[in-house]
Amino acid sequence: MALALSLGQRGQGTCWPNPSVGCVLVRNGRIVGRGWTQPGGRPHAETEALTQAGSAAHGATAYVSLEPCAHHGKTPPCAEALIAAGVSRVVAAIEDSDPRVAGQGFAMLRDAGIEVMTGVLTDQAERELAGFFLKTEQGRPFVTLKLASSFDGRIATATGHSQWITGPRARRAVHAMRARHDAVMVGAGTARADDPSLTVRDLGIEHQPVRVVVSRHMDLPLMGQLARTASETPVWLCHGPHPDVERARAWEGLGARLIPCALQEHHIDAADLLQQLGHAGLTRVFCEGGAALAASLLAEDLVDELVGFTAGLTIGAEGLSAVGTLGLESLDFAPRFDLIGTRAVGDDILHRWGRSTR
Amino acid sequence: MALALSLGQRGQGTCWPNPSVGCVLVRNGRIVGRGWTQPGGRPHAETEALTQAGSAAHGATAYVSLEPCAHHGKTPPCAEALIAAGVSRVVAAIEDSDPRVAGQGFAMLRDAGIEVMTGVLTDQAERELAGFFLKTEQGRPFVTLKLASSFDGRIATATGHSQWITGPRARRAVHAMRARHDAVMVGAGTARADDPSLTVRDLGIEHQPVRVVVSRHMDLPLMGQLARTASETPVWLCHGPHPDVERARAWEGLGARLIPCALQEHHIDAADLLQQLGHAGLTRVFCEGGAALAASLLAEDLVDELVGFTAGLTIGAEGLSAVGTLGLESLDFAPRFDLIGTRAVGDDILHRWGRSTR
Repeated sequence: MALALSLGQRGQGTCWPNPSVGCVLVRNGRIVGRGWTQPGGRPHAETEALTQAGSAAHGATAYVSLEPCAHHGKTPPCAEALIAAGVSRVVAAIEDSDPRVAGQGFAMLRDAGIEVMTGVLTDQAERELAGFFLKTEQGRPFVTLKLASSFDGRIATATGHSQWITGPRARRAVHAMRARHDAVMVGAGTARADDPSLTVRDLGIEHQPVRVVVSRHMDLPLMGQLARTASETPVWLCHGPHPDVERARAWEGLGARLIPCALQEHHIDAADLLQQLGHAGLTRVFCEGGAALAASLLAEDLVDELVGFTAGLTIGAEGLSAVGTLGLESLDFAPRFDLIGTRAVGDDILHRWGRSTR
Repeated sequence: MALALSLGQRGQGTCWPNPSVGCVLVRNGRIVGRGWTQPGGRPHAETEALTQAGSAAHGATAYVSLEPCAHHGKTPPCAEALIAAGVSRVVAAIEDSDPRVAGQGFAMLRDAGIEVMTGVLTDQAERELAGFFLKTEQGRPFVTLKLASSFDGRIATATGHSQWITGPRARRAVHAMRARHDAVMVGAGTARADDPSLTVRDLGIEHQPVRVVVSRHMDLPLMGQLARTASETPVWLCHGPHPDVERARAWEGLGARLIPCALQEHHIDAADLLQQLGHAGLTRVFCEGGAALAASLLAEDLVDELVGFTAGLTIGAEGLSAVGTLGLESLDFAPRFDLIGTRAVGDDILHRWGRSTR
């Protein structure tokens, strides 16, 4: 099952709106097939593993990180395929919460006389598939908020100087993280200040995450990196009501997708923003700031994982903060996270924190 | 030698103005004596180890973390004691830079026919004894700056609410760090806001570091923790010129030591402050903020080690910063540090950075 979960990780960021599942077929103590959800979401992991195994699947045990699907979508249900291949036992990490599956995959297998076992490495599967479950259950994607800052929590000097705070190893780690998310998201201020391309580079990866820019007024440079590459790699602009017609037309002409979002006190409402992105199919979003977008996600308790890169330099109190104002009256109301782990990455440190369960 | 260095650590914080040295005597592959500098700086490590070894010291090899002293101070020179005991070989990690020693200890030993070897684990000895070397060579103590903050680098909400950001395990680690320094230092704002006692608690340690408070005008509460305990555990007030006579008298009456320091643009000059503390005998100072004192030490490049405790909560940009304004025009001028290491401490992370060698 650990192998199935690890195979499932390979599809992360590439198979939305589908969950990234892993499947291992074992017969007589030997692995006869391995598979994971393919780019675009199809074929499913089970189909991949069964194709690889061929007739060896007969009598095998299938380890899958998620309950096999039971519904006819764009592909026939995996439960049916496992039955047809003559698999004798299915071990799943967790039940699917999609109402079209939700136990029906297991029921279909059991009805066909296949032994079904579930609850193996469930916690890990819950974490790996959290984006899919959130989208299914709450309509929004999993949100990772990454902030790279100085020792004292600043992302730039008062004059806006910000390149480079963290080193090349940390930046490379960021690219690897982008690759495991469906989309990379920034606020308009960051898009204007840094003119980022937000792509995954130097990792030998072909698939690129969607680039999401949150800009109420769509006031983004039409000559920047994002505009120049919008026809090759998707750019989605999340904007407020009544955008300027000419800007909207220009961006559509460049190939961007426009996503209208509701406002909350003159800002794009973070909750509605994520609902729109979930509706558009995203299961995992990697937000890289800026300070205002980070603050609005934190204030509405919409951050599932907090990733910090901290560099060994100090910028001072007049520098730009990584997180904008939160308006806390007391520490009791501060958004809190549980430590996942910390380690050195080149000259900087990486620290990861998960949604608090306390 | 690794054991000698580790024994030397035991004296850190307790034997200033002397260096904290470790000594191991080995004869025929067996340890016959171990010693480290005793509280107050005497007896020296060599004397301790020789006393323990007795006649077994004859023909033994002495491993010492620092060159044995050659001058008659309050105790006879250790080089003489090693000669008298009949030690046949001395291995030292590093030469003493005190002009009263500086190679003369080695010369005295060689003149007596003892084999002398040096340069073993020199880098580690340099780090361990950095405070003593700084005081000898530059007149100032080694400065560790510890800042405990939220994920986004804040030490309190805008309303001053700051208890507790980090958890009990991190606070315990801070007490252990205090114990290995000669003094704990804070600015006046922190002393007023938090009313700290700055003592080492719950570690079974009797020796307490000196409490240093930097306050230009000496405007500190006369009813606070520091005032109440000044007669038991030293309190040193570093103040500007022309202090209010009544306040000065009151603090002296409470048992505090007053140390006048020079000003630089209306603030206590950090460089002069450290010269005064070095002159008073301190070799290792643990500064715990606040933001203004931290900034003035950083701005003058007077921080030797930076220790961060980071908690998994966000306070927002309106919260109080861990480091005050530095007035940087560009990142090129930002004080930079090299990563020593990072690890989890309870629910928080600890990260340590050293003076940059780049």
